[in-house]
Amino acid sequence: MAVLLSYLATEIVIPVCAVVGILFSLAQWYLVSRVRVTPDRNAPAAGTNTKKNGFNDYLIEEEEGVNDQTVVAKCAEIQNAISEGATSFLFTEYQYVGVFMVVFAVLIFLFLGSVKGFSTESQPCTYDVTNTCKPALATAVFSTVAFLLGGITSLLSGFLGMKIATYANARTTLEARKGVGKAFIVAFRSGAVMGFLLAANGLLVLYITINLFQLYYGDDWEGLFEAITGYGLGGSAMALFGRVGGGIYTKAADVGADLVGKIERNIPEDDPRNPAVIADNVGDNVGDIAGMGSDLFGSYAESSCAALVVASISSFGINHEFTAMLYPLLVSSMGILVCLITTLFATDFFEIKAVKDIEPALKKQLIISTVLMTIGIAIVSWVALPSSFTIYNFGVQKVVKNWQLFLCVSVGLWAGLIIGFVTEYYTSNAYSPVQDVADSCRTGAATNVIFGLALGYKSVIIPIFAIAVSIFVSFSFAAMYGIAVAALGMLSTIATGLAIDAYGPISDNAGGIAEMAGMSHRIRERTDALDAAGNTTAAIGKGFAIGSAALVSLALFGAFVSRAAISTVDVLTPKVFIGLIVGAMLPYWFSAMTMKSVGSAALKMVEEVRRQFNTIPGLMEGLAKPDYATCVKISTDASIKEMIPPGALVILTPLIVGTLFGVETLSGVLAGSLVSGVQVAISASNTGGAWDNAKKYIEAGASEHARTLGPKGSDPHKAAVIGDTIGDPLKDTSGPSLNILIKLMAVESLVFAPFFATHGGLLFKIF
Amino acid sequence: MAVLLSYLATEIVIPVCAVVGILFSLAQWYLVSRVRVTPDRNAPAAGTNTKKNGFNDYLIEEEEGVNDQTVVAKCAEIQNAISEGATSFLFTEYQYVGVFMVVFAVLIFLFLGSVKGFSTESQPCTYDVTNTCKPALATAVFSTVAFLLGGITSLLSGFLGMKIATYANARTTLEARKGVGKAFIVAFRSGAVMGFLLAANGLLVLYITINLFQLYYGDDWEGLFEAITGYGLGGSAMALFGRVGGGIYTKAADVGADLVGKIERNIPEDDPRNPAVIADNVGDNVGDIAGMGSDLFGSYAESSCAALVVASISSFGINHEFTAMLYPLLVSSMGILVCLITTLFATDFFEIKAVKDIEPALKKQLIISTVLMTIGIAIVSWVALPSSFTIYNFGVQKVVKNWQLFLCVSVGLWAGLIIGFVTEYYTSNAYSPVQDVADSCRTGAATNVIFGLALGYKSVIIPIFAIAVSIFVSFSFAAMYGIAVAALGMLSTIATGLAIDAYGPISDNAGGIAEMAGMSHRIRERTDALDAAGNTTAAIGKGFAIGSAALVSLALFGAFVSRAAISTVDVLTPKVFIGLIVGAMLPYWFSAMTMKSVGSAALKMVEEVRRQFNTIPGLMEGLAKPDYATCVKISTDASIKEMIPPGALVILTPLIVGTLFGVETLSGVLAGSLVSGVQVAISASNTGGAWDNAKKYIEAGASEHARTLGPKGSDPHKAAVIGDTIGDPLKDTSGPSLNILIKLMAVESLVFAPFFATHGGLLFKIF
Repeated sequence: MAVLLSYLATEIVIPVCAVVGILFSLAQWYLVSRVRVTPDRNAPAAGTNTKKNGFNDYLIEEEEGVNDQTVVAKCAEIQNAISEGATSFLFTEYQYVGVFMVVFAVLIFLFLGSVKGFSTESQPCTYDVTNTCKPALATAVFSTVAFLLGGITSLLSGFLGMKIATYANARTTLEARKGVGKAFIVAFRSGAVMGFLLAANGLLVLYITINLFQLYYGDDWEGLFEAITGYGLGGSAMALFGRVGGGIYTKAADVGADLVGKIERNIPEDDPRNPAVIADNVGDNVGDIAGMGSDLFGSYAESSCAALVVASISSFGINHEFTAMLYPLLVSSMGILVCLITTLFATDFFEIKAVKDIEPALKKQLIISTVLMTIGIAIVSWVALPSSFTIYNFGVQKVVKNWQLFLCVSVGLWAGLIIGFVTEYYTSNAYSPVQDVADSCRTGAATNVIFGLALGYKSVIIPIFAIAVSIFVSFSFAAMYGIAVAALGMLSTIATGLAIDAYGPISDNAGGIAEMAGMSHRIRERTDALDAAGNTTAAIGKGFAIGSAALVSLALFGAFVSRAAISTVDVLTPKVFIGLIVGAMLPYWFSAMTMKSVGSAALKMVEEVRRQFNTIPGLMEGLAKPDYATCVKISTDASIKEMIPPGALVILTPLIVGTLFGVETLSGVLAGSLVSGVQVAISASNTGGAWDNAKKYIEAGASEHARTLGPKGSDPHKAAVIGDTIGDPLKDTSGPSLNILIKLMAVESLVFAPFFATHGGLLFKIF
Repeated sequence: MAVLLSYLATEIVIPVCAVVGILFSLAQWYLVSRVRVTPDRNAPAAGTNTKKNGFNDYLIEEEEGVNDQTVVAKCAEIQNAISEGATSFLFTEYQYVGVFMVVFAVLIFLFLGSVKGFSTESQPCTYDVTNTCKPALATAVFSTVAFLLGGITSLLSGFLGMKIATYANARTTLEARKGVGKAFIVAFRSGAVMGFLLAANGLLVLYITINLFQLYYGDDWEGLFEAITGYGLGGSAMALFGRVGGGIYTKAADVGADLVGKIERNIPEDDPRNPAVIADNVGDNVGDIAGMGSDLFGSYAESSCAALVVASISSFGINHEFTAMLYPLLVSSMGILVCLITTLFATDFFEIKAVKDIEPALKKQLIISTVLMTIGIAIVSWVALPSSFTIYNFGVQKVVKNWQLFLCVSVGLWAGLIIGFVTEYYTSNAYSPVQDVADSCRTGAATNVIFGLALGYKSVIIPIFAIAVSIFVSFSFAAMYGIAVAALGMLSTIATGLAIDAYGPISDNAGGIAEMAGMSHRIRERTDALDAAGNTTAAIGKGFAIGSAALVSLALFGAFVSRAAISTVDVLTPKVFIGLIVGAMLPYWFSAMTMKSVGSAALKMVEEVRRQFNTIPGLMEGLAKPDYATCVKISTDASIKEMIPPGALVILTPLIVGTLFGVETLSGVLAGSLVSGVQVAISASNTGGAWDNAKKYIEAGASEHARTLGPKGSDPHKAAVIGDTIGDPLKDTSGPSLNILIKLMAVESLVFAPFFATHGGLLFKIF
């Protein structure tokens, strides 16, 4: 039975949705840009009470009689410094990325080309041996091209996200003068720019790549979609730099700034006298914005590729049902439309009037997008899928109904929501877990750490059950294809997810700018309120990222196993079991490396900050300006140098294991690192988030209980600060970096699968 | 080809070795008992310089002119209080153990009996269908009996170990007056009593049980050795109480005593004014001695059972080669002889003259026992095994040569040594990892914690590779039988392992007694030196325990899979994969529970200690005696109450998963919890050990570097104390308890396998 949506319609719908997403993102950008950060030269002097910036509200400066023009100029200056620092980091990173990409592209070409000895002869297809498919050399060439395209798209998305974030932070500060609602909208819109750009760009480039590749591949869908997996690898490889490099950068700057500034010199956070303060703010952008963006883009590209490669050997591929084949892309297209509507709820339909409205507004975003998307998936499944089709997986056939596939995508989507809410429960200081951790600070830092670690461990339980149920349901209905689309379901609302996630660091930066520009403490209070909500959404974002990483990795793992032609991965064989136990160890090795990297990089920062305080006369008195640029450079260089060992571990493990031990052991390594890494990542993120918010809970003193623990500087508060500092590398570097570990190893194995299957396992062949 | 050792010789050699072990242990006990703790009424008054206690050395008291008789009397009194506290805890525990054992015995009988509907008819054997085997009901009855025997043996060993430890601690203190060498010998001999009693008892009871059961089973070796697995389950179930209950006890008392005593009241550790001081010392005995003993006894019983049950379906079983069948027991018998010789090296051949000799002496114990045991294994393999035999495993046959089995046992033995040395490297303050952690205390508690966590993560790498290599080698040579004997190899020197392990808490207690009895600080310095070495050996013991637990669990897992008649455990099936990911989560859930248990129990202790300080007049001034017994009671009650949730998780998981989801999912859970639990356990133990020794490093101030961080009370030292407190529950409760999680779930699954295979997977049957 044919599908309702015609070939032509599919070819129109996907790019149209992508372009709509891009246009919407540009519209948001335009709205943000209307907040002016250049002083108005024609404006009358301060204190004359004219209406500013085209709005009708009075600004705080006007009420307090501060010179508005100076403040705006100062904000613009700081924003510039942050933007320059971030750009300089990214460009330095790109030099290394460039070298890495070229080397890795050559590797891909050589490994894949050597599978059939660089032969240009066509070969019989794997699944339909009567048909002739393109030569292995073509796969090598096109995989390499797809890899480069994936990498460049990720890079571009990260760069643009970072640009808009550094463009929006001072604007958020300035809007905070008019009220918390106005500031929220600017910050949220800027997040949306990033979210929509990333989702729409990723979709559009993938769509165009498929269509271009098809010009060569024609009827050979197997070869076509195998080559497309390179796109996922490219996206994920960039995420390694974004997540790990960015993660090390942000925490080196943060910890370095705090250790000297807060502890040794006793000056407040974000004080402009601290030489590392700009680096710290840059870190928020390169780590939490560009890093998170590249991570989620990687997941998104990978889950699409995993679904496509599995579907290419289903009845879609055999019957050449183009619309059904592109079901994953249609789901993503629908996701863009749904997120567009969802965004309007935050920016236009409702209005934030008070601080207490912020968290519910963000939570509503999650719920609205999930509910709408469920309907959206139903529509896509109805129009784009035949009422039943056949999946070939691990040598067995499985007939899948369209409503079953709808359930697969939905279960992933809703599992994401559950993970989000559980994360919120364990990391928001509105609930008892974080309050208990705060309470444990009474008996000192030790009990705080013990309770925080236990909280992180406990927070793993429900997310794992949610992931397990998703896996079971989606696998039962549609084998590995089900898992891949479940992952896609979780990521289908990525635009909204990224918007609320990016909103956090933008607010954080806005607060920093307010502090540095010497603005009223009332501004800082407003941005702090935005930031507190952002802390929780950041934790939710990390929950999504790791949850989707788990599903994506499993889907990639399944695709790898298919491509490597393994029919079972039997734990009872020693080859697999040693892989499993060593794989389960890798997250620990990797975490030890990233934690050490943060430590070393922070130490270098500490030395530089100390040097400046000691050698620049008048710095502490605020008479001289610190040398921000050197700190930015130190963070940049250190983070790139320090990411080499963990990066090498991730990149080399599949290559070494696959070449020396073969595909069975590699399967074990992938499964082991997946099931163990998920736990470490979730617990590390949530422990860190809980400590951060326990500290904020004591500082804010919003309840009777919180006031008995405070104020700032009390013994419990000091204990809470220790917990917060320990949590920094856990939640922002080692925890989230594990996503990359499990995903990148899986997608790399998938791309190199033909090589490992043909030439791998050298060690066992020799002995 | 027949084996060299005749049936009769085997029947003589095993019990003789066991009896030799018991006699040796009694001899050690006698030697310890010669140190008198009753004041000699006929002795002349102090200061008259006569020779005391039958030795020629002068005692410190004599040099300092203190009344020796009073000191001895005080030591005896304190020892009594500790002994009474420990006995009271164990007897309270035994009441619950009794109830648990009866309930669980009934469960075993009902579950196993119901497999064939309580039929008393004989049935065809599984592997040799032409033969007739005993009815399933017999397996139910004999498994239940074996379970009870295993439990009682474990209980007895733990009890006797605790008795000798509390008998030896004051004697160690008194001997410390004569010199560090004399004190070392008393502490080490006492450890040896426990080690040999446990190894020999375990062997003897197992041997007798096999012989008695054979009277009924006769030719049905399959049924016989299936029933024997109950012995392993019994041993392991007791270990749950010993390790988890004891672990909670010891840390509740320790943390509770420190939080009030050291922090609030500012009195030193082990000060007799602290009401929790006796409970703290009791805790060392019930946690580190009885708990560790029951844990290792469980591993030992389980690995023997796993090897026997796998071997029963090998050609040994079919050809009825009794000697070859009992190879595991013969290895253990040889182990007793080897450890006996090794012990003499510590107590008689060499002499400890100075503090710096202690650690090398203990390390030599490990090396000597490993080298001698390698020769011992070669001999046993030569005389007790046919030159080649056949293993039937997962439907395949495997021909094994006797030298291959020798290599299997040896690889386990040497992997144990490697794990021991790596653990020492990461936890002893003689090497750079701990020194780096100590150095990180300069920048405060936060960096100390980050570096400590990273150290723990890093310390996992080499042990996992050692375990992986053992698994690969032993599995390649002899399938699951190879894994089981590799585990046995690691445990073959258990007597020596336990001796050096038990030595630590005895020295710790000795120091406590010296402090409480108000003895000279020179005595305390000597016992502290013993204790510092004991800290490292404790970490090594934990490394052994977790390493052997990993191998044992895998062997049990293999035996379970055989018994449940599963031919593959394919990660690519959803039933298995969800088991795998949920299983990998269980160690986190379990750790969260045990950490919370310690927290709650410690809080109760804090309240009681505060109450006593506030209500007993003259307590702080040393005029009134605190109420030690109430604190002991609180620790006892709290620990038993708090162990219920984690205990229930361990006991119920296999029953629920097996019954509702079936054997495939259960296989996944076992594999997942094994590969993930090992990492958490090793990292938790080593992180805790490193923090403890980093603190000791700063306190001892033995190097230039250490002195820049100290002295006691400096900021770095305070940071180190925070790390030490965090490490306490990690290294003594949640870390080691994970051994029980992975082993007990595996052995329970093995025992209940026939039930799950027949009636399990209800949920999938319904839907």
